Amino acid sequence: MSTGTMPETAWKKREETPVSDETIRLIDTYWRAANYLSVGQIYLLDNPLVRTPLTIDDIKPRLLGHWGTTPGLNFMYAHMNRAIQERDLNTIYIIGPGHGGPGLVASAYLDGTYSEVYHDIEQDEAGIKRLFKQFSFPGGIPSHVAPETPGSIHEGGELGYALSHAYGAAFDNPDLLVMAVVGDGEAETGPLATSWHSNKWIDPVQDGVVLPILHLNGYKIANPTVLDRIPQDELLDLFKGYGHTPYLVEGGFDGEDPIAVHKRYAEVLDAALNQIAEIKAQAAAGTLEGRAKWPMIILRTPKGWTCPPVIDGVQVENTWRAHQVPLANARDTPEHTALLEGWLKSYRPEELFDDEGRPVPDAVAIAPKGDRRMSANPIANGGLIRKDLRLRDWREFGVDVPSPGATSNEATRVLGDWLAKVIEDNPNNFRIFGPDETASNRLAPPVYTATDKQFAGEIWPIDEHIARVGRVMEVLSEHQCEGWLEGYLLTGRHGLFTSYEAFIHIVDSMFNQHAKWLKVTREIPWRRSISSLNYLLSSHVWRQDHNGFSHQDPGFIDHVVNKSADVVRVYLPFDANTLLSTYDHCLRSVDYVNVVVAGKQPQPNLLTVDEAVRHMTRGLGIFEWAGSEKPGEEPDVVLAAAGDIPTLEVLAASEILQKAIPDLKVRVVNVVDLMKLQPEDEHPHGLSDRDYDAIFTVDKPVIFAYHGYPWLIHRLTYRRNGHGTLHVRGYKEEGTTTTPFDMVMRNDLDRYHLVIDAIDRVPGLAERYAGLRQEMVDARLTARLYAYEHGEDIPEVAKWAWKGGANANINDTGGDND
Amino acid sequence: MSTGTMPETAWKKREETPVSDETIRLIDTYWRAANYLSVGQIYLLDNPLVRTPLTIDDIKPRLLGHWGTTPGLNFMYAHMNRAIQERDLNTIYIIGPGHGGPGLVASAYLDGTYSEVYHDIEQDEAGIKRLFKQFSFPGGIPSHVAPETPGSIHEGGELGYALSHAYGAAFDNPDLLVMAVVGDGEAETGPLATSWHSNKWIDPVQDGVVLPILHLNGYKIANPTVLDRIPQDELLDLFKGYGHTPYLVEGGFDGEDPIAVHKRYAEVLDAALNQIAEIKAQAAAGTLEGRAKWPMIILRTPKGWTCPPVIDGVQVENTWRAHQVPLANARDTPEHTALLEGWLKSYRPEELFDDEGRPVPDAVAIAPKGDRRMSANPIANGGLIRKDLRLRDWREFGVDVPSPGATSNEATRVLGDWLAKVIEDNPNNFRIFGPDETASNRLAPPVYTATDKQFAGEIWPIDEHIARVGRVMEVLSEHQCEGWLEGYLLTGRHGLFTSYEAFIHIVDSMFNQHAKWLKVTREIPWRRSISSLNYLLSSHVWRQDHNGFSHQDPGFIDHVVNKSADVVRVYLPFDANTLLSTYDHCLRSVDYVNVVVAGKQPQPNLLTVDEAVRHMTRGLGIFEWAGSEKPGEEPDVVLAAAGDIPTLEVLAASEILQKAIPDLKVRVVNVVDLMKLQPEDEHPHGLSDRDYDAIFTVDKPVIFAYHGYPWLIHRLTYRRNGHGTLHVRGYKEEGTTTTPFDMVMRNDLDRYHLVIDAIDRVPGLAERYAGLRQEMVDARLTARLYAYEHGEDIPEVAKWAWKGGANANINDTGGDND
Repeated sequence: MSTGTMPETAWKKREETPVSDETIRLIDTYWRAANYLSVGQIYLLDNPLVRTPLTIDDIKPRLLGHWGTTPGLNFMYAHMNRAIQERDLNTIYIIGPGHGGPGLVASAYLDGTYSEVYHDIEQDEAGIKRLFKQFSFPGGIPSHVAPETPGSIHEGGELGYALSHAYGAAFDNPDLLVMAVVGDGEAETGPLATSWHSNKWIDPVQDGVVLPILHLNGYKIANPTVLDRIPQDELLDLFKGYGHTPYLVEGGFDGEDPIAVHKRYAEVLDAALNQIAEIKAQAAAGTLEGRAKWPMIILRTPKGWTCPPVIDGVQVENTWRAHQVPLANARDTPEHTALLEGWLKSYRPEELFDDEGRPVPDAVAIAPKGDRRMSANPIANGGLIRKDLRLRDWREFGVDVPSPGATSNEATRVLGDWLAKVIEDNPNNFRIFGPDETASNRLAPPVYTATDKQFAGEIWPIDEHIARVGRVMEVLSEHQCEGWLEGYLLTGRHGLFTSYEAFIHIVDSMFNQHAKWLKVTREIPWRRSISSLNYLLSSHVWRQDHNGFSHQDPGFIDHVVNKSADVVRVYLPFDANTLLSTYDHCLRSVDYVNVVVAGKQPQPNLLTVDEAVRHMTRGLGIFEWAGSEKPGEEPDVVLAAAGDIPTLEVLAASEILQKAIPDLKVRVVNVVDLMKLQPEDEHPHGLSDRDYDAIFTVDKPVIFAYHGYPWLIHRLTYRRNGHGTLHVRGYKEEGTTTTPFDMVMRNDLDRYHLVIDAIDRVPGLAERYAGLRQEMVDARLTARLYAYEHGEDIPEVAKWAWKGGANANINDTGGDND
Repeated sequence: MSTGTMPETAWKKREETPVSDETIRLIDTYWRAANYLSVGQIYLLDNPLVRTPLTIDDIKPRLLGHWGTTPGLNFMYAHMNRAIQERDLNTIYIIGPGHGGPGLVASAYLDGTYSEVYHDIEQDEAGIKRLFKQFSFPGGIPSHVAPETPGSIHEGGELGYALSHAYGAAFDNPDLLVMAVVGDGEAETGPLATSWHSNKWIDPVQDGVVLPILHLNGYKIANPTVLDRIPQDELLDLFKGYGHTPYLVEGGFDGEDPIAVHKRYAEVLDAALNQIAEIKAQAAAGTLEGRAKWPMIILRTPKGWTCPPVIDGVQVENTWRAHQVPLANARDTPEHTALLEGWLKSYRPEELFDDEGRPVPDAVAIAPKGDRRMSANPIANGGLIRKDLRLRDWREFGVDVPSPGATSNEATRVLGDWLAKVIEDNPNNFRIFGPDETASNRLAPPVYTATDKQFAGEIWPIDEHIARVGRVMEVLSEHQCEGWLEGYLLTGRHGLFTSYEAFIHIVDSMFNQHAKWLKVTREIPWRRSISSLNYLLSSHVWRQDHNGFSHQDPGFIDHVVNKSADVVRVYLPFDANTLLSTYDHCLRSVDYVNVVVAGKQPQPNLLTVDEAVRHMTRGLGIFEWAGSEKPGEEPDVVLAAAGDIPTLEVLAASEILQKAIPDLKVRVVNVVDLMKLQPEDEHPHGLSDRDYDAIFTVDKPVIFAYHGYPWLIHRLTYRRNGHGTLHVRGYKEEGTTTTPFDMVMRNDLDRYHLVIDAIDRVPGLAERYAGLRQEMVDARLTARLYAYEHGEDIPEVAKWAWKGGANANINDTGGDND
């Protein structure tokens, strides 16, 4: 594997002379070898070089794989190899089509990378046999281009993210060329359809180049593809409309000699790469006018190209029937077995592999060497080149907290001050991604003291903080933000994604795929650690006064905790200092997904910097200053909170209880690191039962005010002692357009209801404090009536009147827009 | 409101003469009235007609709304009103931009619909005051075009689905015109970007017409929009590439007189509508060549058009600063209050409303009457025109089950036979939507005996089951499938969505919005019930042999059950007859989201038709035939299952236990309706504690084999008696490419492990049956080693050898492609 040095590229133009016949021959030889190795992976258990007649015992009993996309991928790979060698290009690939695994594995095997990272798969007949057997086989490798595939940063599983990942890899890699293959099936997905516009965010000086190749092979599982069934002028208009210069090549139909197709494609690839070199040169010289109209290639070849054209009298090649395994029953009749043998031999393996089964020199002549191999490019194993961020001591950015609640801040704005320094100190490997919400989430204005929003579209004089280069990437597509960030992280850099809490569900499935990627890479020794994927969900369920019910959903946390405990972390900081501490931790961590939910409105500051350090180190703890228990005594009731709004309601409830019931021993607990609640054998952060009991008691009523859906707290704690006395309040899908306090009331999370809960659950209180209980009921009614008449919350709750603190006004609405 | 009759449209062409100055004046008058009412909603608590000087008490204390998009929406609405009247068009609107609520509410108020459905909001000054106050106010209406807005089937909350909904509404409504406004912010989302291709699925004879209007007002929350910042030739190429005929209008900049803009837009709208009429006429005559290049309009106007251009010396109109509330502090200084008053008066309210506050005739002259009003079109209140499906008795399609497991079927194929009849019997109001998986999920071939896949792109001779019209809608975009289906249901029709279980997460957020829509509409008396949204997730987590880890995720169920219990239902049928019964129920139901998870591979049939009826009626039950308890006796252990694969493993485990431990009383329970597990006060389907205890016992060990993430079962049952003895096995994110049985083993859901669980949990067994336990451990190892060597499962488990049944072969792989 690579040594981890960052390669450079001189963007050379190539003379416009045809590629020599000899080079074309070598491309074709490589292509045949890759195709042979691909077919072998799908079908063969044994007899890998077909040196004896194929028998059914040589064939896998269950044929699990896909041929359709593979010959085209091998074709593009072979040609890019030629270009890399000739131009000394620094290139990685992104393979969008699903199930392209065999092709990319074949190329990694041919260029030697595969044997370097998997020592038992040598370049000999025994190695080929193992290579073949492991494919889509128990204990082996998946059918997709996957984490196991050297050179990949993109799994060909779920479709739609090829270009987003490609552009994410290209940002801040000015010498990188990303060959991004988009399948015409994938092209129908929404995320892919918008990702063509990524070219509006590329700076030709600072960033690398993405060369998209739309592979039109015409069919999906059972249908033709849309882009293959529109007139050619529409197809070309579409890509011009996306701002590209499209180049169209087609061939291989009706038995056309592949050599002719190689020649046409080589010419087009050279033209596209020359155009790229020209753009790069102009950009470097400062002579580029306007936005570059980067090239893209449309390659139209038959689906399943080079497989038996007709099987059992039915056309297979160039139809959807070639999508998966063309000879699904290769073991069932001698005719089918013979057909498979003929297919394998059509690549002339005897010309491709020597007696030991090693690829002959001609078969691999076109492949580059060392780090220039796409399979071995260190950029595609991002941890190899990842450098830790330079981070200022967040404590210097912390806010003063003379006493809990004495001051208040918009926590995200304070975080913005610190992030501005992260940007200054890390000018080339840290970016912030978001769907037009950096300002709304109040990281700005601070971050715009250090950077701008990058945009390659037209910039007008009225625009603010928009420039050709910048560290903030905004596009109104959560898919794009997520995909760009993933691509950026997977190539060894750092970043975060700020979004609305409700709409982060848009990327639920992308999160799934990334979390699965991280889980799998933990078990692949040659994959190095990459920076964690950090979310900042700052316009959250409790503060959607502008937006209402459609914007209220705290369920992303529930979604995330379904994934492997090794990979996911959830934090609910409640003020400026705890948010700073949380993000300092997140930006240092690797191989996790960190979900941070924190409001953007003014909130009382509760902990000093030092207290925040201690609280965050533990992940949860008792706020002695907010309760009324005596040292060494057990409390009568535990009021616990996770989340900023629940924490304030718990503090207010505790104050009411203490005033009204002086002899009641109230404990106030705050949980910032949600995974602490899980048993220690289920999550690495999980608290031991002993520690859990010390905080929550084993039998006292616990009233738990939680940011999200209440059942998650039950799920995390159902094995705990005292789970029977745990009562959780949270968002129960009662939402509307109303005031902040009315929102917590609608979900019974408000201070008054928490007091009622305590009265109802602490033995003896219900009888003794029926009057207080009624007062609470009345207070709720009063608060609601006031809100419905005046459109704002009553001063008593709007001013979080608590321990005498003058602080945040929840009637503030500024910036909560969308 | 409407009487519910389906209107017809004659697609008339209009002479190409300019619209008269008088008509233009009336359009402008209407526009001013709509704008006035929009501004009033955002700002005013009182003094609605500004008949006395505005004071701060007239202004809402918290200004929660958005002006930016509204004047453009009012403009398009006013012009469409004119066209509807002139051409007698049957038209609904879809408003994509977020926060367009005030505009559409204003128009519904002007044309009288609003007062018809909300009787307290009359057309007089008191009514206007109430109209204004309720907007974005506690107890009032949201800022978006919402369920509360008459005429809407689309919430302007989450962005991206305007066109998908519009096309869904147009399918099978040949006389319908859908004016679909796409914001240039929304246009950046993935789902929207691909939805322009919906025109490749419209049949000009059978379906209605969508007229997309891209509203380029240039800015999002804090950024310019991409499509506003590309050269005009790219913009036009893009929409030509999408297969449209684009028409561009711009105006209103630099103080241009709106009258001039009205004239230009009226001319373009006429041209577009004439083109539509021409296409419709050609299609009816059978003379249309190829796919129609339907018109679309690009309207470029200033953001916040007609608001104060400059506030506090800063440009507001035509910038992102007009996005939300241009005068955010209208109460803070007399100057700002005066500016607001001047803004309101700029629309000349004294010319728009009479002394009582009623709109004067000129102000509403352009609005159509009755059902022609877009606010009152019955199609946008789909329940008004919804007709129940004609459904054959599913029992006639049931499979024979001489004894449990004696036969086996692919359940989805059997369902396909029944669905073919649903299609035959309901030729105009039922469709199946899916991302290229109808065949893979094995509803086909059967459904293709009754219909084809609809496609308006090029159709080639090699294609099968593809035609210009058909009931199956396939596009490789879950977003499109979901959006189309939602639009189809919301306009009174029926359908289902088949997808892979893992990738249905792609539409998590769309599901959220639809579930929220359903919840809200339950509380709106004039909204009528619509058909349920039915999912069929048939390529599920346990059978992804081709696809591996990236395709394994059963978490959609978890996501769904976070939503209101009134709205969501989850079913896990386990064989052909239970699947038929489930779908019969789903297609009859209204106002739910029904999630059905059912495998497509051959599975043993367990219940006869009659047994299935009984089991499905209860939703769960004891399989006496599979256990060994005696009537009247409590079992020693309960083996429960939910899901097809868990059910088989439980049956096999029960058989092993009975053979090995003859005196053990085993009860076998199956849960089809997952919501039965919830307490009855939490879900309408929830079982009473008494019934629950009768099935699960209060203290016996329950080994629960569940299809999905095990913690969901705990979440649903944690308040139940006996929860402490409940032990759940399910998918715990241990996935890979392997054999089916190895998959269940990896997650400890296999028969052998269930036997071990029983031994470990039934008191006394562990000591007495240590040998059996070891046998089970050995059997697991044997099974894994066999799979790793041979690539398939050992015959003992591959042939679900159980009660002597010869049945499904889990080594079957056919069709499990992707």
